[in-house]
Amino acid sequence: MAEEVKSISPYGKARSTVTGEPLSEEDLEKYNGFFKASLYLSLGMIYLRENPLLREPLVIKQCKARLLGHFGSAPGQIFTWMHFNRLIKKYDLDSIFISGPGHGAPAVLSQAYLEGTYSEVYPDMSEDVEGMQRFFKQFSFPGGIGSHATPETPGSIHEGGELGYSVSHAFGAVYDNPNLIALTMVGDGEAETGPLATAWHSTKFLNPIVDGAVLPVLHLNGYKINNPTILARIPHKELEYFFRGCGWEPYFVEGNDPDTMHQAMASTLEHCVLEIKKYQKQARDSGKAFRPTWPMIVLRSPKGWTGPRKIDDNYLEGFWRAHQVPITDVASNPMHLKLLENWMKSYEPERVFDESGKLIPELRALCPEGNRRMSANPIGNGGLLVKPLKMPDFKKYSIQVDHPGVTTDASMRNMSTFLRDIVAANPNNFRLFGPDETESNKLGEVYKAGKKVWMGEYFEEDVDGGNLAPEGRVMEMLSEHTCEGWLEGYLLSGRHGLLNSYEPFIHVIDSMVNQHCKWIEKCLEVEWRAKIASLNILLTAVVWRQDHNGFTHQDPGFLDVVANKSPEVVRIYLPPDGNCLLSVMDHCFRSKNYVNVIVADKQEHLQYLPMEAAVEHCTKGIGRWAQFSTDAGEEPDIVMASCGDISTYESLAAIDLLLQYFPDLKIRCVNCVDLFKLIHPSDHPHGMTDSEWVSLFTSNKPVIFNFHSYPWLVHRLTYKRPGSGNLHVRGYKEKGNIDTPLELAIRNQTDRFSLAMDAIDRMPHLRNSGAHAREALLGQQIKARNQAFEDGVDPDFLKNWTWPHNGLWNKVSKLTTK
Amino acid sequence: MAEEVKSISPYGKARSTVTGEPLSEEDLEKYNGFFKASLYLSLGMIYLRENPLLREPLVIKQCKARLLGHFGSAPGQIFTWMHFNRLIKKYDLDSIFISGPGHGAPAVLSQAYLEGTYSEVYPDMSEDVEGMQRFFKQFSFPGGIGSHATPETPGSIHEGGELGYSVSHAFGAVYDNPNLIALTMVGDGEAETGPLATAWHSTKFLNPIVDGAVLPVLHLNGYKINNPTILARIPHKELEYFFRGCGWEPYFVEGNDPDTMHQAMASTLEHCVLEIKKYQKQARDSGKAFRPTWPMIVLRSPKGWTGPRKIDDNYLEGFWRAHQVPITDVASNPMHLKLLENWMKSYEPERVFDESGKLIPELRALCPEGNRRMSANPIGNGGLLVKPLKMPDFKKYSIQVDHPGVTTDASMRNMSTFLRDIVAANPNNFRLFGPDETESNKLGEVYKAGKKVWMGEYFEEDVDGGNLAPEGRVMEMLSEHTCEGWLEGYLLSGRHGLLNSYEPFIHVIDSMVNQHCKWIEKCLEVEWRAKIASLNILLTAVVWRQDHNGFTHQDPGFLDVVANKSPEVVRIYLPPDGNCLLSVMDHCFRSKNYVNVIVADKQEHLQYLPMEAAVEHCTKGIGRWAQFSTDAGEEPDIVMASCGDISTYESLAAIDLLLQYFPDLKIRCVNCVDLFKLIHPSDHPHGMTDSEWVSLFTSNKPVIFNFHSYPWLVHRLTYKRPGSGNLHVRGYKEKGNIDTPLELAIRNQTDRFSLAMDAIDRMPHLRNSGAHAREALLGQQIKARNQAFEDGVDPDFLKNWTWPHNGLWNKVSKLTTK
Repeated sequence: MAEEVKSISPYGKARSTVTGEPLSEEDLEKYNGFFKASLYLSLGMIYLRENPLLREPLVIKQCKARLLGHFGSAPGQIFTWMHFNRLIKKYDLDSIFISGPGHGAPAVLSQAYLEGTYSEVYPDMSEDVEGMQRFFKQFSFPGGIGSHATPETPGSIHEGGELGYSVSHAFGAVYDNPNLIALTMVGDGEAETGPLATAWHSTKFLNPIVDGAVLPVLHLNGYKINNPTILARIPHKELEYFFRGCGWEPYFVEGNDPDTMHQAMASTLEHCVLEIKKYQKQARDSGKAFRPTWPMIVLRSPKGWTGPRKIDDNYLEGFWRAHQVPITDVASNPMHLKLLENWMKSYEPERVFDESGKLIPELRALCPEGNRRMSANPIGNGGLLVKPLKMPDFKKYSIQVDHPGVTTDASMRNMSTFLRDIVAANPNNFRLFGPDETESNKLGEVYKAGKKVWMGEYFEEDVDGGNLAPEGRVMEMLSEHTCEGWLEGYLLSGRHGLLNSYEPFIHVIDSMVNQHCKWIEKCLEVEWRAKIASLNILLTAVVWRQDHNGFTHQDPGFLDVVANKSPEVVRIYLPPDGNCLLSVMDHCFRSKNYVNVIVADKQEHLQYLPMEAAVEHCTKGIGRWAQFSTDAGEEPDIVMASCGDISTYESLAAIDLLLQYFPDLKIRCVNCVDLFKLIHPSDHPHGMTDSEWVSLFTSNKPVIFNFHSYPWLVHRLTYKRPGSGNLHVRGYKEKGNIDTPLELAIRNQTDRFSLAMDAIDRMPHLRNSGAHAREALLGQQIKARNQAFEDGVDPDFLKNWTWPHNGLWNKVSKLTTK
Repeated sequence: MAEEVKSISPYGKARSTVTGEPLSEEDLEKYNGFFKASLYLSLGMIYLRENPLLREPLVIKQCKARLLGHFGSAPGQIFTWMHFNRLIKKYDLDSIFISGPGHGAPAVLSQAYLEGTYSEVYPDMSEDVEGMQRFFKQFSFPGGIGSHATPETPGSIHEGGELGYSVSHAFGAVYDNPNLIALTMVGDGEAETGPLATAWHSTKFLNPIVDGAVLPVLHLNGYKINNPTILARIPHKELEYFFRGCGWEPYFVEGNDPDTMHQAMASTLEHCVLEIKKYQKQARDSGKAFRPTWPMIVLRSPKGWTGPRKIDDNYLEGFWRAHQVPITDVASNPMHLKLLENWMKSYEPERVFDESGKLIPELRALCPEGNRRMSANPIGNGGLLVKPLKMPDFKKYSIQVDHPGVTTDASMRNMSTFLRDIVAANPNNFRLFGPDETESNKLGEVYKAGKKVWMGEYFEEDVDGGNLAPEGRVMEMLSEHTCEGWLEGYLLSGRHGLLNSYEPFIHVIDSMVNQHCKWIEKCLEVEWRAKIASLNILLTAVVWRQDHNGFTHQDPGFLDVVANKSPEVVRIYLPPDGNCLLSVMDHCFRSKNYVNVIVADKQEHLQYLPMEAAVEHCTKGIGRWAQFSTDAGEEPDIVMASCGDISTYESLAAIDLLLQYFPDLKIRCVNCVDLFKLIHPSDHPHGMTDSEWVSLFTSNKPVIFNFHSYPWLVHRLTYKRPGSGNLHVRGYKEKGNIDTPLELAIRNQTDRFSLAMDAIDRMPHLRNSGAHAREALLGQQIKARNQAFEDGVDPDFLKNWTWPHNGLWNKVSKLTTK
C-alpha cells in the first residue's frame, strides 16, 4: 500500500556494503573538525556579511539583506570530497571533482577555500577573518559569484545550473586521461533527467587502458526543490538492480551518525579506488581491454545533514525544506536568528579556525597539496593543458575546380579525408563524436584512422564493416546529449573534438549548447581561466534534402538559437562548396573558446572556387563573386545573394536563367560564408561596416537573398542596414508535405525558377518586357515539378545542371582570383 | 576480452521466459500467413509502383525510381502487433499501438491496410490490386506519406521521426484511461536517448486504479543506422537487472525460428496481459493503489528478420545493412532485382491475397473488428474524444484594481486559484505537469484540488506538506522531457493539460515542442483528424528575476524557437498583469490545436487593468493604453511600447519619469500581449494590418519598445512594417554577471532610467532642453545601482513604485474602459 512508511532511511548508524574502520579515533576527530569547518563556511556564505566567525553575538544587520543560496546538498558533497582527499594523499591520485547536484556551490567553494586554492586565485579572499568576510559576502551577491560551481570556481569544469550533464562531462574528461579519476557527485534530482539517465551507459565506451575512470557518487539525499526523488523512494533491491543493469557495481553508504559514516565512507571510497586500480592494472598489464563492472557509490544521507531536524513544527533536515536557505525568516524572527547562530556555533568555528581566521594546521593537513588538490588540478582549467592540433595542410585536400560551376564533387566526403588525417595526426587528443550518423554523414573515411570505440560485446557480423574496436577515435551513441556532454568534458579538460549531427535533431541539445556558450562567455571574464579549444558542431543531412525523411527532419533553426548567444563566443559558417568547407573546418579547428557551427550538405555538389579563391572568400566571409556576376564596374540591376551550399546552387542557376532571357542584365552575385558578416559590427565582431554593406548590396537595388535557414534570421541580422527594405529573403518555412527537393524549394520560392521570376518582378524596367520570360520560366518550373511528381525523383537536370549547357557561360566573366 | 563473440544471438529456436504453446498447428499456419502478407506489403511499399502482386515477372520499370524507406524494424513490429490482436479479440482489450523505432511506418501501415482501416479512411487505397498499387506508390513519394507513423497513419498518436518519446507518450495516453493498454514498441536505438532512458521510471506515477497500462516491448534487433545498440550487447543478466531496476519485470522472447517464436510471443503477450489485469483487479477490488512490478517484453529478433542473411558476401538480415532499403542496387544489378523478386515471392502473395488482391478471409479473421482494431481505436484520433473543459468563470478570480498602477498583487498566485478550480471541475481529463517547480512557480494552490501523483514509497516527513497521493492531478518529475511527453500523450488521446516550467530550461524540450508543432500542423491537412486540445506551456521564473540563480538561468529564447514554427499552430502571449493573465489562460484552455506559450513572472507586480479592460486588451492583443498616455487626440512625441510584465512595469515607470521632467510631453503608451500582433498578417493570422500598425506606432515617431526576450525577435517580426527604422527595441542580451534585477535591467537598458534617457535622446526637440533631465536621471540610476550593490538588494522603490507618489498621476488620463 502506497502510504505505508518504508524502512529505508537516511538516519541511524552507517549501513554500508563495504565495512571496515580505516580511521583512528584521532582521525575521526579530525574529519569531524574538517566537516564542521566546511559546513560552517557553507552557512556563512548564505547568511553572513559581517562577523564572519561569530566572535560577537549575531545581530540581524550582520546578515545579508537578501538571503540566497542552497544548503541541502552541501553536507553530502563536502563529506565525499574530504574523504576522497585521504585517498588522493595515500595513493597520489590525480583527481577532479564534478558537482552534479543543483546549486552545490557552497560545498565546492568551501573546499577550495579550505585547501587554500581560493586565496591563491583570489588574493583578497585571504585565509583570515577579513578574507573570510569577503568570501562570504561575494556569494550570490551582485558583482560576486553564483550559487553553482561557476567558472569562477577553481577546479570546476561543470557548472551544473542546468541539471543532467555531470556524468557525461566526467566521462569526457577521463577519455584519453588514463591516470585521472573524476569523482562525480550525481544529484538524485539530476538523476531523473533524461541526459543523466542515459549517461550511465557511458561505461560501454570507456577503455581501461587508454582512459581514466569515473567514480560516481549518487547523492541520495531524498529531495528535490519540493518533491521526493524517485531513486530515494524505490526498494533497495531495485536500486541495486538499476546500477548493475547500467553496468556498475553499487556500494551503499547510508545513515547520518557522523563517526560510523566517516568510517563507512572512508572504507568504501578506498575500496572503489582499489577496484578501479585493479581493473586498470589488469587491462594494462595484459594489453587486453575489457569492460569491468565499475564501482560506484550510493550515499544516502539526509538533505541538509547536520542541520536541525525540525524548526518549530516543520521538518528541515531530511526534508525538502533544507534545499535552499534553511531558515528564511531570521530578519523577522529573533528566535530563528538565535537558532541560526547556535546552529553555526555548533560547528565550533572558534576551534577549527585559528585566531587569524585560518583553518588550523592539523585540519589543513588532511588536504592534498599543490596540483593534487581537486580545487587546483590543472585539468579543472583545461585551457592550460590544451596543445594545438597537429594539422595537415588543408590545401592538400583541395578539390580540383577546373570549371567553376561545372565540376561536381562530394564536399563532405572530400573533407572527411582531411578529418581522417587530423585524427591520425592527433591520436591522443582529438575525437569525433556523433549520434550514430558518422557514416550516414559521409564521414566514414575517418574510420581508417580511428575506429568506433566499443566496449560492448562483439558479434560475428562485426567483421563485416563494423569498424568497432576497444580503442578508437570515434564515439557514437544514439544520444545527442551524451555525445555533446562527452565532447564538452573532453574540451574542458584540454583536448579537441568535433560533433557531427543531423541538422534537424541538433535542437535536442539546444539547451546544452546554450549552457556551454554561457560557460565560455563567462570564462572570458575570469582572468585565470585559459582558453579551451572551440566546440565545433558540423551539421549535415540538411533541410533541403529531407524529401526522404519528411517533415520531422526539417528544421534549420539551430542557427537562431546560437545567434542569440554572446557574440564573443558564437560563429556560424555556411560554406558554399568543398574548398570553402575545408578552409572553414581548418579555421574552426585552430580557433579557441568559440562555439563554431558549420552547416554543409553531404551530397554531391557543383564546385565553384579553386582553393586559393576559397581561402580568400572564407577569409573575407562574404563577397561578390565576380565570376558569376555581370555588373563589372557598374551598379547592378539586381543583387542575387546566397548563403548555404544548396541555396547558392539555386541562386547561381537563377542567374543563369535570367541571363538566358536578359543577356544584358547587370547581375551582382554575392555569397556569404560567415553569417555574422551580415550583422552590424556593433553587435558582433565579424559584422561588416555599413559602407562595406552598401558597396556589396547597394542601398537601393533589389536583393534576392537565398538563405539556408528560416528567412527571418537574415532580417533579424540586417534590420539596421541601409536599404534593408530592398532585401527579399527566401528560406525555409514550415509545411508538412512529403516533397522532392525541387518541390520543397518551389514551395519556399528558393528554387532557381522562383528566384529568377522573383528577380524579374523586382526590376521595374523588366515589368513589361519580362512577361514572356516569366511565363517561360513558369512553364519550365511546372514541367519539372510534374515530372518529379510522376517519377518520384527530380528531373535529371537537377543533378547535371552545368553552365555551359545553357550556352551562357561565355557571358560570365572568368574567375578573377585565378 | 572485448573481441570475443558472445552467445546471445537473435537466431535459433525461440528462447523465452514464458513457455507454452497456445497456438494450434492451424493457428501457426495462419500466423505465418499473416506475417507473410504484412512483410510482403512492407517490401512492396519500399519497392513497387506497378505489378503490386508480382503476377508478372518483375522488371525494373515497375520499381520506384528512387527507393526510400526502412525495412529493418518492420518484421518485429508486425510480429508484435499481430500476436497482440489475438488477445484483443480474446479479452476484448481496448488498445493502441505506439511505434517507437525509427522509420517503422511499413509495419504500422501494413497492419492498418490489412485490418481494412486504411481503405476506410482513404477509399482510393482500396483492398484490391489497384488500391494496393496506389498504397505502395504513395509511400515515401512526393505528395504521399512519410516513412514514419505520421499523422496520416490511422491509429497513430506518435510519429517517431525524432526518437525517444514513445514511452512517455504511451504513459500520457493511459493516464485516466483505466481500460486502455498502450502496446509500446521501443527501438533499441531509441532506448539510448536520454528522454527514453528516464521515461522507464514513469511507473512511479501510474496508479493501477484510475490509469490504464503500458506494455512496452523493447525491440532488441541489435542495430541502429550503422552501429550495434548498447542494450543488445550487454550480458543477459545486466539487461534483466536494468529493467527490474526501472521497476519492470522483463519477459524475454529471443530467436528467429518462426513457429517457436509465434508460440513464445503468443504466450508471453498473454501472460503480460493477464499480469496487468491481475494487478489492476487487485488494486481496484481493494481500492488500494500500489505499484506493481509491471510486465514488459524484450523481443530479440534479427533486424530485417526473414530477409536474406547475406547478399553476396555482406550480411543483410541480422545486421545494420537491413536498416533501410535492404537491396539498393536493383536498377543496376539484374541479379539483385531477381533476388528481390524471389524474396518477395517467398511471402506467397498469391496465397495470402485473393484474386481481387484482398487479404484472404481466414487471415483477416485474425484481426479484431471495428474500434477494437488498434489502427481504428478512437484514442488514436483523440480529437474525436476531447470534451471541452468545464471552466469556472475566470472573471470571478479578478484582481480588484482600484488604482491602476498602484495596486500590487501576485498575478501568478492569483491565477493559481483559477487553475485550482479548473482542476477541481475536471477531475478526469485535466492534469498539470511540471519538473518539480509547481510550488516554486507559485502554483501550489492547485494541490488543494489535486495532489501530486506519487507511487513511490512514502516517508514520515511526507505528512508535513508533502502533498503526495497515489491519486492526484499534478505530475512532477525532474525531467522536462518526461513531463512534456506525458502531456503530449495526454492531449493526443483527447484530454487537456498545462506544463509549467522555468523559462530558461524550457529549451531542454525545444526539439520535442518542435515535433509536436509539426504533428498538429500536419493534422490540419489530414481531413479525418479531429482537433485536439492545445499544448499550453506556462513559463515563469523569468530572465529578469534570475539574480538569484545567475547566468545559467537566463534565457528567454524559447520564443524564437516557437516563432519559427507554422503560424497555423503557434501562439505567444505575454500578459502584463494579473487580470490579463487570467484572460489569456482562459483563452488558451479553450483553444484547440495550438501550442500556446504564456510568459509571466511569479513575483508581486503592479496591476493595471480591471478585468473588463483586461479582457478587451487581451482580445485586441495589442493596444494603446489611454490611461497611461498623454497624447489624447494628437500625434505623440514618442511611443513607449512594451511586451512582458516586467518590461511593461519599467516602461510605465519611464513614462512617469519623463512626465516628471517634461509634463507637456505627448507620450503614447502601447502594450502588446499577443506577440504575433506585431507580424504582418500575411505571415501569421494574428498579425495586424499595416494601417493598424501605423495608427498605433505611427510611421515616423520614435518607438522605444521594451521587450521581455531577445530584442531582435521584435525586429524579425516587424522588419516589413512602415517606419520600422524608428523602432528601438530593448531586451535581454547575454552577459554572465551576478546581478540584482536592477543591474541586469540597467545593463540591458531595459530599466526605467535607461528607457527614459533613451526616449529623451530620440526626441530632437529635447536634445538641448533635455540635458538637465538626462543628467538627473543618470544620477538617480547611479544612486540606485550603488545602493543595490552595497546592500545586495535593489532599493525599496523597486518594490513600491507607485504613480501617485510621484505626483504625476493626475496628469495621466483616467481609465477609459471603466
